[in-house]
Amino acid sequence: MTQQERIKLQMNESKSMSWWQREDLCYQDGVLFFAGQSVADLVREVGTPGFVYSMGRVLQNLDRLHNALDDAGLDGRHSVLYAMKANRFAPLLAALKQSGKCGIDACSPREVEHAISCGFNANEISFTAGSLSRRDYRLLSRYEGLFFDADSIHGIRAWGEMFSGTQIGIRVNPGMGISRDGNERLQYAGDVTTKFGIYKEQFHEALAAAKDYGLDVTKIHFHTGCGFLTPQLPIWESIIEQCQWFIEQCDSVTRVNVGGGLGVPHVESDQALDLQLWAQALARQFGDKGLHVEIEPGDYLVKDAGLLLLEKTYLERKRDVMFLGVDAGFNIAPEPANYNLPFQPVPVFYQDQPLQTYHVVGNINEALDVWYENAQLPDMDEEDFLVLINAGGYSSSMASNHCMRGEFKERLLG
Amino acid sequence: MTQQERIKLQMNESKSMSWWQREDLCYQDGVLFFAGQSVADLVREVGTPGFVYSMGRVLQNLDRLHNALDDAGLDGRHSVLYAMKANRFAPLLAALKQSGKCGIDACSPREVEHAISCGFNANEISFTAGSLSRRDYRLLSRYEGLFFDADSIHGIRAWGEMFSGTQIGIRVNPGMGISRDGNERLQYAGDVTTKFGIYKEQFHEALAAAKDYGLDVTKIHFHTGCGFLTPQLPIWESIIEQCQWFIEQCDSVTRVNVGGGLGVPHVESDQALDLQLWAQALARQFGDKGLHVEIEPGDYLVKDAGLLLLEKTYLERKRDVMFLGVDAGFNIAPEPANYNLPFQPVPVFYQDQPLQTYHVVGNINEALDVWYENAQLPDMDEEDFLVLINAGGYSSSMASNHCMRGEFKERLLG
Repeated sequence: MTQQERIKLQMNESKSMSWWQREDLCYQDGVLFFAGQSVADLVREVGTPGFVYSMGRVLQNLDRLHNALDDAGLDGRHSVLYAMKANRFAPLLAALKQSGKCGIDACSPREVEHAISCGFNANEISFTAGSLSRRDYRLLSRYEGLFFDADSIHGIRAWGEMFSGTQIGIRVNPGMGISRDGNERLQYAGDVTTKFGIYKEQFHEALAAAKDYGLDVTKIHFHTGCGFLTPQLPIWESIIEQCQWFIEQCDSVTRVNVGGGLGVPHVESDQALDLQLWAQALARQFGDKGLHVEIEPGDYLVKDAGLLLLEKTYLERKRDVMFLGVDAGFNIAPEPANYNLPFQPVPVFYQDQPLQTYHVVGNINEALDVWYENAQLPDMDEEDFLVLINAGGYSSSMASNHCMRGEFKERLLG
Repeated sequence: MTQQERIKLQMNESKSMSWWQREDLCYQDGVLFFAGQSVADLVREVGTPGFVYSMGRVLQNLDRLHNALDDAGLDGRHSVLYAMKANRFAPLLAALKQSGKCGIDACSPREVEHAISCGFNANEISFTAGSLSRRDYRLLSRYEGLFFDADSIHGIRAWGEMFSGTQIGIRVNPGMGISRDGNERLQYAGDVTTKFGIYKEQFHEALAAAKDYGLDVTKIHFHTGCGFLTPQLPIWESIIEQCQWFIEQCDSVTRVNVGGGLGVPHVESDQALDLQLWAQALARQFGDKGLHVEIEPGDYLVKDAGLLLLEKTYLERKRDVMFLGVDAGFNIAPEPANYNLPFQPVPVFYQDQPLQTYHVVGNINEALDVWYENAQLPDMDEEDFLVLINAGGYSSSMASNHCMRGEFKERLLG
């Protein structure tokens, strides 16, 4: 039996232990392996709570995007800008720069500074953010070659004051948006007027402002949602169609940036995003227009490339519920508590034992500090460890020191 | 006209500018004053984004609690333990220690360490937290005199292993809870089984575990909710009544800790908590039992003693909405975005101008980064400042560096 066959066999043993398993994240003889390393060893070496990231997985995710866009006919006409707000761990950014396969999407002057300190050049960075202060503009003015997407007419004027005669992008808002399960907390655009970008109603005023400052609008940027998977692709494409109107108003546009928002499965019933369908939609919309297509994935590159290593603190029945406590809370990985995006808990040791039902909870004194309700896990020993999958994006980068529980380790694996 | 009369007159001029005004936070000749200082001066001296805290206000809030409990007949039989997780700014903690008027409620080993570094003694600190790791217990074992409330039977055993023969508290869960407007995200106890404390169903097992280790259970601790105001007091008292059962099971109890949860007004329609009614309920429940009553206010002491100073970044119509941007986002003060607790925006300069309707938004690239919808504010100049009130609790202490926008100033005023 080859190793792959063995992995497949073990994956079939228990359904609730299987949906998330893949070649670089699976059980081998009862021990969880990640990126070719025993997670039991990682727990010992890195410590808990600790984030481990697989650079191999990040690059696989990145290659998969490039390949899908190439195959759809956009070869040589697309770029990937990594949304560094998802995970700014310096070794990870440095390795991305080394790969030569992406630029950076930054949203604050400090992010630009950090990306540059990790090796990126200013002209590999695209900047998109709202509500910039005078201090922000002053800081940004240091970085020659940085590409600026204005999020407001005010932003066009502020940039024009500093860099009259250059190229800029405009972030537009099509007034439509999607998110995973219609999650309102992640809605960037839609029926309700949001702060993001410039709407149709104000777009001609925006173009006039750009003209006043001699700015060439060469890029239209729009972000239509967050965490979409295959079922959302038809709506996603209809939103892109709405954005064609903006491109048509503006002869100088050579680039279109469709933002990120590509989702990854969080629960067993989620299907992975069909990248072929996604790339074909982009090719259909922009392929015959000669436009260069930019995408800004954050989560898609790093989320499933990260694990949060945790130590079990206690197992105890409270009233009718079995609680399994761990040594970190939502403050170091806020998505499950604040965005209803569950992180599947996975035991480090597992050999087809019977499963029990637990609420996995953290150590923060707040009712919302629950990692996962009704998790199916094997009975665990007194000193045991588990991991949360999908902890690679918007976790450590959003961590706080709430309750002074903000300490954690981070390590980049090969 | 006395200064007080002048303030009163100005407060009546515009209702939406008036509900939050008080003697130490009000307009004087068109300029906002806080803790005796011009906020225009504070903006210049401290910078934006910046938190300013009034120690005078904190001590007023603390005195008000003590006085209400004294007046209700609990003089000499109550203690205040400040829930430092609300705001751990070191000068503020040091000044609280100096006042001699409260101890500390801590919820992590690092909080204990920090409180001690600010001058508190271990025996002035009460520790209550769940899901403690072996490392946590090791760290706590350094602090002789620290009072420990066990949140689980596991916790009783872990403490007993280290400190057999000492006194402990038990945090219980009455299975009922309240919160401001029934906010589920702040629900500590209630119909749904939560991770907090020990339920009736397991309480006798808990007492037996304490006995096994020779631990004297001298305190019953319960936290029944969060942010309650006067209308919630009758429910709050009925929850306390439920907790009497636990006290009755346990002869050795001399102290009862009712947690915090005392709310402050967030919007015009909120009425300040009637402390007389609150204290009378406590006296009614515990006055004739000879029990010492502990309370653990966090927000009640610091929330309305803090302002967040912000610079206006832009004013712009997007589709049908006027947006007013500021130079900080929800990552440095998460309550409005994550807990639906609005922070009223207040202009630094105001002289009875006509008001307009704005959405006040931050600089974070997330849909939920909205400070206040439909705020009534005067037309503002290009370079102008505003403050958010009620930013003294669970703001800076929960701040993250999301989008690398985590920098802010802090200053304690007299």
